[in-house]
Amino acid sequence: MEVTSTLARFIVGHHGADIPETVRREAARSFLNWVGCAVGGSRHETVECALAALNGFSGPREATVLGRSERLDIMLAALMNGITSHTFDFDDTHLKTVIHPSGPVASAILALAERSPVSGADFLHAFILGVEAECRIGNAVYPSHYDVGWHITGTAGVFGAAAAAGRLLGLTEQQMAWALGIAATQSSGLREMFGTMTKPFHPGNAARNGLLAALLAKANFTSSNQGIEAPRGFAHVLASERDLSQITDRLGETWEIALNTYKPFACGIVIHPAIDGCIQLRNEHQLAAAQIESVALKVHPLVLELTGKKAPQAGLEGKFSVYHSVAAAIVHGAAGEEQYSDAVVRDARIMSLRDRVTAVVEKGVHEDQVYVTIRLKDGRVLEKFVEHAVGSVDRPMTDAQLEAKFRSLAQAVLSAGEADRLIRLCWDIGKLKDAAEVARASVPAAARGVP
Amino acid sequence: MEVTSTLARFIVGHHGADIPETVRREAARSFLNWVGCAVGGSRHETVECALAALNGFSGPREATVLGRSERLDIMLAALMNGITSHTFDFDDTHLKTVIHPSGPVASAILALAERSPVSGADFLHAFILGVEAECRIGNAVYPSHYDVGWHITGTAGVFGAAAAAGRLLGLTEQQMAWALGIAATQSSGLREMFGTMTKPFHPGNAARNGLLAALLAKANFTSSNQGIEAPRGFAHVLASERDLSQITDRLGETWEIALNTYKPFACGIVIHPAIDGCIQLRNEHQLAAAQIESVALKVHPLVLELTGKKAPQAGLEGKFSVYHSVAAAIVHGAAGEEQYSDAVVRDARIMSLRDRVTAVVEKGVHEDQVYVTIRLKDGRVLEKFVEHAVGSVDRPMTDAQLEAKFRSLAQAVLSAGEADRLIRLCWDIGKLKDAAEVARASVPAAARGVP
Repeated sequence: MEVTSTLARFIVGHHGADIPETVRREAARSFLNWVGCAVGGSRHETVECALAALNGFSGPREATVLGRSERLDIMLAALMNGITSHTFDFDDTHLKTVIHPSGPVASAILALAERSPVSGADFLHAFILGVEAECRIGNAVYPSHYDVGWHITGTAGVFGAAAAAGRLLGLTEQQMAWALGIAATQSSGLREMFGTMTKPFHPGNAARNGLLAALLAKANFTSSNQGIEAPRGFAHVLASERDLSQITDRLGETWEIALNTYKPFACGIVIHPAIDGCIQLRNEHQLAAAQIESVALKVHPLVLELTGKKAPQAGLEGKFSVYHSVAAAIVHGAAGEEQYSDAVVRDARIMSLRDRVTAVVEKGVHEDQVYVTIRLKDGRVLEKFVEHAVGSVDRPMTDAQLEAKFRSLAQAVLSAGEADRLIRLCWDIGKLKDAAEVARASVPAAARGVP
Repeated sequence: MEVTSTLARFIVGHHGADIPETVRREAARSFLNWVGCAVGGSRHETVECALAALNGFSGPREATVLGRSERLDIMLAALMNGITSHTFDFDDTHLKTVIHPSGPVASAILALAERSPVSGADFLHAFILGVEAECRIGNAVYPSHYDVGWHITGTAGVFGAAAAAGRLLGLTEQQMAWALGIAATQSSGLREMFGTMTKPFHPGNAARNGLLAALLAKANFTSSNQGIEAPRGFAHVLASERDLSQITDRLGETWEIALNTYKPFACGIVIHPAIDGCIQLRNEHQLAAAQIESVALKVHPLVLELTGKKAPQAGLEGKFSVYHSVAAAIVHGAAGEEQYSDAVVRDARIMSLRDRVTAVVEKGVHEDQVYVTIRLKDGRVLEKFVEHAVGSVDRPMTDAQLEAKFRSLAQAVLSAGEADRLIRLCWDIGKLKDAAEVARASVPAAARGVP
């Protein structure tokens, strides 16, 4: 079976006009969400450390670190934007594989677009094709590949970045096969790194290395033509079980980006149903914390396994506490990055409500479900069953919710007007004359030295 | 078992004075051989392609591409020197693991030494420690890791580069553990790439990424402290069987670089005994091709499996022909890169002798053994049994042989005087005031624009 060369032929030869409008629309939603995450994460300590280490090694400063004044060469900018966009773990998720698809692909090609101008239509097309390559390769090796310990966003992401960058660089079919081979041989990223700065390094590194693969292939640096499927290629070496037909079947007929999802809450996906249910009850009944006697949750086992921390002390720990998460959500009506700050985790009102939250495992409750029972001090009992949490494929975030999430992420970096303009550019990405306008518009006037 | 932190503590805390003189001497031999390979490979098409792709992205041009006029930022120079030094597959081999140890480590720290001056003694010490980390990690996962399809020079090399660069950067113990973690998560390289330009890319990429790991860790970019040993860390994810005690047992008492070997001939190790035996008979009896009626070899099965090509047409194919190899060796008295040029493979005198060579598998002949029988037209029969091929641990190349190999590799790039001076600097590496002098001396005057 010719997997690598079939995929290469598809990426090189596909016509943008053959992509359905709904797919293009989902791609714009993915891109908007990604830009918001990158801008929002751009001032994090992780980013400061990486910049301090690498800024002095930059080549031609042709590309933007989104949300910041620093400019870097395109490979370092790709690295940095991949890091920023995954720092809050708030970016998009392809639930079939738990790949965060946009980071590796968008980081690589937005940096490239700043060097080699490209229309928004071509940019969006390359983005969709990159995500397609990345997620199909992920589909072929999931779950054995992920289960053994690979961080699939890194390992599959490098293919997506190489494919999308190679498309924009105009690689021939042979060069694209080589680019996928050079990507295969750089495929890496370990789940052991979760909880450290090296986790968001993975999509950044995939972007950097995928771009490198495409640039080398463009110069006729040769590689295997069977990098994915050969006995000593990617799929056999990095996975104990694989289904290579997932890469080649119905290419161009189905689109993986149509399955993309976005997190409404800045924490692990398993507690999203509980937060969703509590916010719904809060809003329906205009609840205040002081009215509440208790919050009782019936949950899927993973909720307690992964987020059972009763008394978190710091912001990051709050993400591993379903108790804090629902308490903060009821008080603030949201569970964004702000609700996981040290200050909010230590807020007396929220700590007090948190101590009135209980959670028990209930058989038959699915991963994106929850039963919430809130008892009020006046004796009333409020109940809510969440069948599909908001942000799931079955109940996607609306465009308005995505915009609100974007504004919440961007507010520490951009003025309201700047955020609005950037949001408009993201929605319009497919129509822009120059895709790189998005990168330029992500830099606040203050950082550009404008008063 | 604390593997990563134990190794980090060792690398950070070790005293150079505790390294035996014989070990230091072997390190200088490794370094000399590596510099020769890098200079010799520096004009290869592989290198031209990589330079064409990446030269325009260089940051501060602080480091040398050995043997060339181009200067690059230290990470790109590390990449390029790792590529050049492995292009001919003529660099050193740690036979226990088939790692080519010098490429990843020396490429990283020689580039770093050009940015941050370091004494030759400290350089050689860091080199030895980097090779130690790399080969011990290789020992722990070999052979299951290699057998499944990993190119161990890439996967283990990134640790060696990170360790050696981190030592020269003065990392703390915690930072060194992070550097090893960031190395672990970049560990990659597939054997499927053998036979393409992407094979020599592996040690280069390991050098580049190991250097990146050390630079990030220096800026307190955090990672796991158990990157090697954790259930989702390097050794479990990339190998089905492992013995982690190989990394920590008797650290500082044994030295892997003492086991390093150097190829006298520019081809796969399996035909070295046959070439060795034929050259010995040639020299002992001053044989000319015209005198010879036949050459009969009794060999290990791998010789015919890997190098059984009867009538190679091009230079590279000659490396896969035991027949061409011994014919060229008898005519030229050598089997260097030159003997695998297109011209030599197509030389009528050598083709004629090649057709008089036979090889049969003989039970009981070990991998580094051969029986050679040469029948002369005057009726004489000459015989030679090679018990250990030259270049093996049991019969290492002499210093003079290493120098001759160096000169043969360098002759297309450097003048005889320049090669002599560079050889002297390599032997003296441990005493140089500034280790980077070696890099500068590798550039021919012609390339520096001096008449």
